[in-house]
Parts: sequence; structure tokens; C-alpha cells
Amino acid sequence: GRGFSASEHQHCRHNPLRDEWVLVSAHRVRRPWRGQLEQPPAEDVPRWDPANPLCPGATRANGEVNPHYEGTFVFPNDFPALQPDSPAPGDSDHPLFQAAAARGVCKVMCFHPWSDLTLPLMSLAEIRAVIDAWAELAAELGASYPWVQIFENKGEMMGCSNPHPHCQVWASSFLPNEARLEERTQRQYRHRHGVPMLLEYAEQEARRKERLVVENEDWLVVVPYWATWPFQTLLLPRRHVLRLQDLRDSERDSLASIMQRLLIKYDNLFQVSFPYSMGWHGAPTGPHLQEDCGHWQLHAHYYPPLLRSATVRKFMVGYEMLAQAQRDLTPEQVSVEGTRHGDCPQDRPLAEHPPIWSLQAAERLRSLPEVHYKQRRR
Amino acid sequence: GRGFSASEHQHCRHNPLRDEWVLVSAHRVRRPWRGQLEQPPAEDVPRWDPANPLCPGATRANGEVNPHYEGTFVFPNDFPALQPDSPAPGDSDHPLFQAAAARGVCKVMCFHPWSDLTLPLMSLAEIRAVIDAWAELAAELGASYPWVQIFENKGEMMGCSNPHPHCQVWASSFLPNEARLEERTQRQYRHRHGVPMLLEYAEQEARRKERLVVENEDWLVVVPYWATWPFQTLLLPRRHVLRLQDLRDSERDSLASIMQRLLIKYDNLFQVSFPYSMGWHGAPTGPHLQEDCGHWQLHAHYYPPLLRSATVRKFMVGYEMLAQAQRDLTPEQVSVEGTRHGDCPQDRPLAEHPPIWSLQAAERLRSLPEVHYKQRRR
Ligand SMILES: O=P(O)(O)O[C@H]1O[C@H](CO)[C@@H](O)[C@H](O)[C@H]1O
Ligand SMILES: O=P(O)(O)O[C@H]1O[C@H](CO)[C@@H](O)[C@H](O)[C@H]1O
Repeated sequence: GRGFSASEHQHCRHNPLRDEWVLVSAHRVRRPWRGQLEQPPAEDVPRWDPANPLCPGATRANGEVNPHYEGTFVFPNDFPALQPDSPAPGDSDHPLFQAAAARGVCKVMCFHPWSDLTLPLMSLAEIRAVIDAWAELAAELGASYPWVQIFENKGEMMGCSNPHPHCQVWASSFLPNEARLEERTQRQYRHRHGVPMLLEYAEQEARRKERLVVENEDWLVVVPYWATWPFQTLLLPRRHVLRLQDLRDSERDSLASIMQRLLIKYDNLFQVSFPYSMGWHGAPTGPHLQEDCGHWQLHAHYYPPLLRSATVRKFMVGYEMLAQAQRDLTPEQVSVEGTRHGDCPQDRPLAEHPPIWSLQAAERLRSLPEVHYKQRRR
Repeated sequence: GRGFSASEHQHCRHNPLRDEWVLVSAHRVRRPWRGQLEQPPAEDVPRWDPANPLCPGATRANGEVNPHYEGTFVFPNDFPALQPDSPAPGDSDHPLFQAAAARGVCKVMCFHPWSDLTLPLMSLAEIRAVIDAWAELAAELGASYPWVQIFENKGEMMGCSNPHPHCQVWASSFLPNEARLEERTQRQYRHRHGVPMLLEYAEQEARRKERLVVENEDWLVVVPYWATWPFQTLLLPRRHVLRLQDLRDSERDSLASIMQRLLIKYDNLFQVSFPYSMGWHGAPTGPHLQEDCGHWQLHAHYYPPLLRSATVRKFMVGYEMLAQAQRDLTPEQVSVEGTRHGDCPQDRPLAEHPPIWSLQAAERLRSLPEVHYKQRRR
């Protein structure tokens, strides 16, 4: 368009995986923030706390005692949202009151015996062990369940209720909404264009480079063109891979490496243990193992809420909930001159709000060091 | 189903407006909460603060001085996500990189000159004035824009950055995602069943009663069958009404009354100014004013985040973002015996977590007084 600049002018971008749009209004990040400030995470988490049910040797809610595990440790969620033997609801008496059976299992996986560690502070071998445990659970639960959702809520801001490094695995008898959506969009894309959507997307982004955050021989991480969260990323293999359990030995090593690099950058961004929810999406399993799932491509989504600093997040609220996701900076924005924060008499201290409106998401992440800020002096 | 009880057994429910499912796992609310605690809102907001750009007589970010308004007051958002004259992006060079023009206007509407009021504490006449101002803006902006989104973010927890009672109105040159979704589902429903979906739904809920919160001659409020937020509600007219501006004089009065009753109940639930995002959806406007929009029915969604108390919210995170919305109590749940909170050594004080797992959403709201807890002693 004549005179159009993505970093200056609002526009909508299409998310082909969810078949929906995001409103990108770059200049919004200049507005002062006088809303809620978040608490940075506690820095004094004890390495071992016998009262924490996720620790080695601790007693859980159901009375069981954890082993003195030394690597990863998987156990059943004591308050599962899904159980294997739940009865099915009866037939609906009206099209507006439809219920369906939901069966499944919920597991918790501790990444490490220490409570004061997080993935970016773990060694490559330790991260590799997590990847192997993911692949194992994905295969084991995927033998019968159509969908195995592996996800990590990191940080209290993302509803994480225990500081011990862990993720969850919820396997369900149904394809959840997001899975159904990505199934449809990826199927249609391959039908129309002859190639798996995310394989093509990774190739395009590897060539275009402007949204790349980190890459290696097998993987790349981008701030997707359609990102809604300020520093949202998408982790993609270069090879066509359907599921976690299909990853080769060398690909698991390179995955550990790229995860470590991404997560260190995330922590370095605001010098804080970076909150996010992340999770893996791959081809459906159970009965779908027999079907052609070639339109699928394995990927991980990272959804981090922070916008401006360790204490100022992006809120997905009114307009976002009722109309459409909206973002305040472009994935690949270049310098924009902005009014400095602090012009406004009622503002909170300037230190809370470094003037980040001159920085774009991908380049900002890309330019961060790959040594963790806590480990720099070691 | 044999032995199935919605209040005991997990199941999925279909949201016909969004054509997606929610996982309902009632027993989850029994789990202890050791995650983030929210700050209750400040109780000492000054009635008038010349440094607050929303107050009468205050100077705004663009240097303009507000009039000494006495009722509602509408002005342009100084940091608009949408502007009327933004250039359009150029043609896309690839199906995975699609951008579209986004034009519009963003307005802010103050509900009242006092900063220490909220809608539930305003008089019926004052709420009626807000409704009239909404209808006026909807008609005015709807003359040219296809979608006019009126929404209120209430409380810091919902990203509200100013305590002064206000809402926002964003009009856009495009139908946002939620509008497109509801357009499709309502159109299909009427095509299949011959009646507008939400007209039929209101009739059904009025008859079934178990999810009703408040009702009067023109309106009803229900915790919808497919609610995802714990105390989410849907406000519906009984008559077939396409848009806010079509409401009759008497319907505006009865709307003021039912809004006041609902919002007082909300505040009474945890004896706190209840945070939420709410907004109106009605038939599209602009070029759509000429089309048959009879499948639409005007409605307001209320999305409140609190789950257990003034300080414990529901987080829509990992599983919800990556797979499917999940709720921890049923809309119409009946008593469930639960393990009491506090069994767990590390728990926060019991007072923070009243044992609400024995209460269902609609009945809990229904049974609350209709006098505001702050006004009881007047
Ligand atoms: O416009 P406000 O009130 O500053 O901002 C608030 O509402 C907007 C619209 O829902 C959101 O995009 C922002 O994240 C939120 O903080
Ligand atoms: O299971 P947790 O960690 O207690 O709970 C967390 O993750 C769940 C799955 O995303 C969410 O439903 C909860 O709201 C959140 O607090």
C-alpha cells in the first residue's frame, strides 16, 4: 500500500493456524501504563522443601510419598481435570444444550529434583532428559488417547501454583478445540497448496529472517507473523516431523540446545524468570495413528504475558475477549520515536517502564545474550 | 448416561455461539490454591483528582482540557488502536503472510463525573444515561462502521488502567473475529432451526430456571450452559432485538434495573468491587444495515475472572490456551462434599479460601442480596 509501514500503521494479520486475525497497532505501546503491576517471582525458593508435594521424598495430597528421584519424575495429578472412567452424559434434549463425554488422564512431570531451578538454568543433558520423558509420555498415552497435551505454566502470573520446575500432561478422549482448529487449517492448507503449512512456514521464515529469534541445524524459533502476545514465539523443526516421539536422537539434542538458548534469552529480556505458558502440538494419536496425518507438523507455542518490563504485562481483556486479539508492537518493528514515559504527572517510577517502544519483538529477543544473566559471573 | 451427574463427573459442553467446547471438571475446585493472590482494588480512590485525565476539568495526554461534565462524557482515546485514516498494507506475496487494512475510531466514555463510583453504586437514572449514551454511539459510529464494540474493563485485574468509571468504544472497518464467529453460528442456527439462536436460548433458560441469575419483564441474565469463566453471565432481551439503538424507552429502563441488580450481586459475591470485562454484541452495522440480520440477537457478555475469593482468580493458561477452556465448577452445580482446604501444610490462611466447592455459579449469584454491601447501613 502507498505510504504503508507495518511498524507505524495499524493493520490486521491473519493467523493461518487458527484462521483468525490479530489487530496490530504498533503506536499503542507509547501509551503510559498506570494499571496493575505484577510481582516479580520469589528469588528465595528453597532447593528442597519437604512440605512441597513436588519435591523428592515429600508426601502428596493423596498420602503417597515421592521417591528420592534424581532426574525427571512423573506422577498422576492429584486434582485431575480428566479421569479415565468418567460416565458419559445422557443424550441432549435440545441443540443448545449439548454435552459430550470427556475421559482422560492428567499427569505432572517434575523436570528436576531441585525447586530452585528452571529449564533455562538446567544443563543440556538435563533438558534432553525432559525431552525424552515428553516423547515417552506422548507415545505411551498416545497409544490410546487421540490427544496428549503437554504444557508448562511457568510463573505465578501464568497460574502456576508451585515453584518447582514442572509441566503437565493431559491426555483426552477427544480432540480439544485448538487441536480441531489446527487439524482443519493444516488439512485445508495442504489440500490447497500441496505442502504442510508449517513446513512451508519454517522455510519462508528461515529465508526472510526478520522474525527469527534463534536457529540451528534442525530447529528454528520465530516470533510468528501473527503473534498476539508481545514476545510470543513458535518453535518449529526444519524437517517434516509429526510427533515428539518421532524425533531422532540428534534432533532431541538440538532441541535441548535451542530451547536452552530461547529460554535464556527470555529470562535475559527483563532480567527475571520469564513467565509463559508453552505447549506442544503434533499430529493426533490413538485412532488417528492409522490415518494420514501428513498435513501436521510438530511445533511448540510459547505464550509469555510480559509487555514492557518484569512488572508490566499485556492484558488480553475487553476488546480482545469480545472482538479480536490486539498487539501493541509489531513482531518485526523498527525504531519508532515515542513520547517518553514520565511526562504524565501521575505515573509510576520511570524505572518500571524502560522505553521499549523503539524495539521490535524478534530483534529484541535475537540481540539478547545467550548466557543467562544469573550465570554471567560464574 | 448411566450414573452421570454433571456436578460430579467431568464432561464437555458445547458453546453454540463460538462453536467450541468447554471441559467442565467440577471436582477441580476442591484443589488447594497456593498460587498467585490478587490485590483487592484500592478503597481510597479520590472523588476528584485533577491529575487523572478522566476527571472533569483535568488535562488529557493531548493537552485538551475536559469540560466540567455532570453526566456521561465521551472523548477520543488518546492512544487509539484504530485510526480512521490508516493506509492499507500492500498485497500479500504469500498465503502465510496475509495483512489487511484496519481503520476505525476508539472512544472513551466516562460513566459519571466521580472517580469513586462504579456502575453498581450508581442510581438507575445514571445507569439509564449510560445506556442512552451507548445507544447513541452505537448508532452514530454504526452509520458507517460495520462493527462498534462497546466494552468495559473493570478492575486492575482486567487490565483497567484508570479507576474512574468508564468504558471504551472501538469501531472498526472490519468484522472482528468474535463478530465473524457469532455471525456464522447465528446464521447457521436460524437456517437449521428457523429461529434466532439467542431468542430460543433465552426462552429455554427462562423455562429451565436452573441457570437464571436475575430476570425482569424484558431481560434475563443467565450463567450460560457453556460458561468458561467461573461466574460468567450472558444478558439477554426476551424480545427479538438486533441492536442497542433499537431498544425502546421502557426496555432501557428495565435494562438499567437488571444491570444494577446483576452488578450489585457481583460486588456482593466476594464483598469487593467485582472485576470483569463486559461488552455488547449486536447485529453488524454500516453496510450490513441494509442486509437481513434477523439471525442476530442483541446480548452482553460478562467475563469476570474471580474464582474463590476476592484474591483468587481463575487462570486461563496452559491447557486453556493450548487445548480447550476448562472450568472448575458447573454453572448449575449442586452440593459436593469436598476435602477441606487447609489439610495441606503449606497452604495460605484458610480465610483466603472459603470452601466454595459446595456452591454452584448461578445459584450462588441468585441467592445474593440485591442491596450493595457498601450501602446496607445507609
Ligand atoms: O485501553 P486501555 O484501558 O489502556 O487498555 C486495556 O484495554 C485494552 C482493550 O481491551 C487492552 O488492549 C489492554 O491490554 C488493556 O490494558
Ligand atoms: O493445574 P494447576 O497448575 O494447579 O492449574 C493451572 O493450570 C491449569 C491448566 O492450564 C488451569 O486450569 C488452572 O487455572 C491453572 O491455575
